[in-house]
Amino acid sequence: MTIKISIDCMGGDHGPAVTVAAAVAFANREPDVEFLLVGLEADIQSELKKLHATQHPRLKIIHASEVIEMHDPIEVALRRKKDSSMRVAVTQVKEGMAQACVSAGNTGALMAVSRYVLKTMQGVDRPAICSMLPNQKNLPTYMLDLGANVDCEPVHLHQFAIMGSALVSALEGKERPTIGLLNVGEEDIKGNDVVKKTAQLLREDHERGLLNFYGNVEGNDIFKGTTDIVVCDGFVGNVTLKAVEGLGRFVKTTLTESFKSNFLNILGAVIARGALKSISRTMNPSNYNGGSLLGLRGLVFKSHGSADKYSYEWAIQRAFDAAKNDVLARISTSMAKLMPVADPVSSDNNDLPVQKTA
Amino acid sequence: MTIKISIDCMGGDHGPAVTVAAAVAFANREPDVEFLLVGLEADIQSELKKLHATQHPRLKIIHASEVIEMHDPIEVALRRKKDSSMRVAVTQVKEGMAQACVSAGNTGALMAVSRYVLKTMQGVDRPAICSMLPNQKNLPTYMLDLGANVDCEPVHLHQFAIMGSALVSALEGKERPTIGLLNVGEEDIKGNDVVKKTAQLLREDHERGLLNFYGNVEGNDIFKGTTDIVVCDGFVGNVTLKAVEGLGRFVKTTLTESFKSNFLNILGAVIARGALKSISRTMNPSNYNGGSLLGLRGLVFKSHGSADKYSYEWAIQRAFDAAKNDVLARISTSMAKLMPVADPVSSDNNDLPVQKTA
Repeated sequence: MTIKISIDCMGGDHGPAVTVAAAVAFANREPDVEFLLVGLEADIQSELKKLHATQHPRLKIIHASEVIEMHDPIEVALRRKKDSSMRVAVTQVKEGMAQACVSAGNTGALMAVSRYVLKTMQGVDRPAICSMLPNQKNLPTYMLDLGANVDCEPVHLHQFAIMGSALVSALEGKERPTIGLLNVGEEDIKGNDVVKKTAQLLREDHERGLLNFYGNVEGNDIFKGTTDIVVCDGFVGNVTLKAVEGLGRFVKTTLTESFKSNFLNILGAVIARGALKSISRTMNPSNYNGGSLLGLRGLVFKSHGSADKYSYEWAIQRAFDAAKNDVLARISTSMAKLMPVADPVSSDNNDLPVQKTA
Repeated sequence: MTIKISIDCMGGDHGPAVTVAAAVAFANREPDVEFLLVGLEADIQSELKKLHATQHPRLKIIHASEVIEMHDPIEVALRRKKDSSMRVAVTQVKEGMAQACVSAGNTGALMAVSRYVLKTMQGVDRPAICSMLPNQKNLPTYMLDLGANVDCEPVHLHQFAIMGSALVSALEGKERPTIGLLNVGEEDIKGNDVVKKTAQLLREDHERGLLNFYGNVEGNDIFKGTTDIVVCDGFVGNVTLKAVEGLGRFVKTTLTESFKSNFLNILGAVIARGALKSISRTMNPSNYNGGSLLGLRGLVFKSHGSADKYSYEWAIQRAFDAAKNDVLARISTSMAKLMPVADPVSSDNNDLPVQKTA
């Protein structure tokens, strides 16, 4: 079965030089993919020419005349630039022309546009961004929200837990994945008000057998793999994610410099290059690029704005895997089981978060 | 000049086995230190016996009959256990018997007790925990708050910036250290309300020439060394710090395992052991143990609860350096210059944070 993916070619720090190049590379190694390359036709065409791919049978250009810049306020993305590459790319999913969309554009804009175009799933007030991080158990830790919602109420964190649980049970085949609530300590008395109230909601769900709530987890538990899912607000999630990515890059630089510092170290590095490769594979933040916008009626994946071609391919890979495994339908089914009785208002009102009773 | 340091010997996951052992090791290599070992006399004595240090001329036991446990609520630490090792250790600083105190006990309790016993500096509503992290410029990034205040208003973050600036100018001899405000993006429109309002206060100070405010920074900037100081609330700071420590441990395990995985890798590791040592030195989170409780009228240092002897020695080292460099007086002087006109209420009221106008 061919999977169609729309690419917001103009999004990200490098635009088509990265996005088109990554799509071409992916198409060349994956016969079951077809790309809709959305953006300024001339720019995409020129990139395809460079890559000798103008005649590629599984690459189709869809012209969009506008570009959402990284500094554009959400209002501009939503109300003014109606023919932006981002919006047109997401619309492909809405209209069934693509099964998933990938964008490296402005996170806030992508979330707003996706929400406006695709709408949220029933019972979801605010979609969240969910990504995988590696852990010491050699399994992924799914973490959300990673930046879509910088101000959260307990009801939102509660929904993130439900969405995360549905995603992990769909992707990993786990019936009852464990959920940890990110906090400053394990004890119930720890944390701010929002987190304490969220813990209460999650404990209630746990007692009812709806969710598998482990309890509070701390920052180090992400990498210990204490729980399958780590829930937090988008401010904390985004800062934490970028901090660990920053440390990852720091480690890589230190490794490289140390092993180049004299002849013995170079020799050691050559002899142990297998070990170094395996470390680089485990630690490379590029391998974890591609966050899922969870809670929408369509699959949208967010790549880092600064992603290079290799890293952007990983975001495409996530979108491809999710579409191939029909994750959307499986999440919807799981969500229907887990969500509190639906509030008809919230599923249509995608501009204002609606406070719901659990 | 001899520096006297009081040690809360009962604090931390391991108690005297770590705290007393670290103090003995430190005293053996540093002739200019004298320790007041505070806690249950029998336990401390027994540890000293094991270490053949009962007759050490620069170790003095001060008996305290109670122990604050990790799960003790702050009220218990503050109102019930009045003869706790923690409180007695802090009191040594108050009474001039020690120039600094080190504890690995419950963070909330240590902050509350220190605040109650020592009081805050003029103009400080809430003390903060400040630690150093390594960065790619081979300099320290000072980050605060790392867990003392899980709910912060802009006025608190503003004060943290002032305290951090005073600390760094005292410790690093920098006239105008740069301050970054931790956020989800660099742009002014990014972030939650608290952060946006804090940025406004810091910009005003910058324009008045009081502080050197760089602007928003992201998680990865901590390790890039974009600014000398990174300011955030205690929830974000604590989670981030523990996450990067977790990743640090994960990297260490991966390195160790990869280099042991076959003969070639072992050989490579032996040959390049210089490089591996240097990496381990840069990356070892133990080297960064020891957070300063900033904003108090006395020097108190917090060690990780889980610290081992090596790591606890680093916390002692920080306390020793700060006392030797007369950091407290230098901070007070800097603070007096930087602080908005003092509000006589806030310096004496150490139980309730007082909202101040900037």
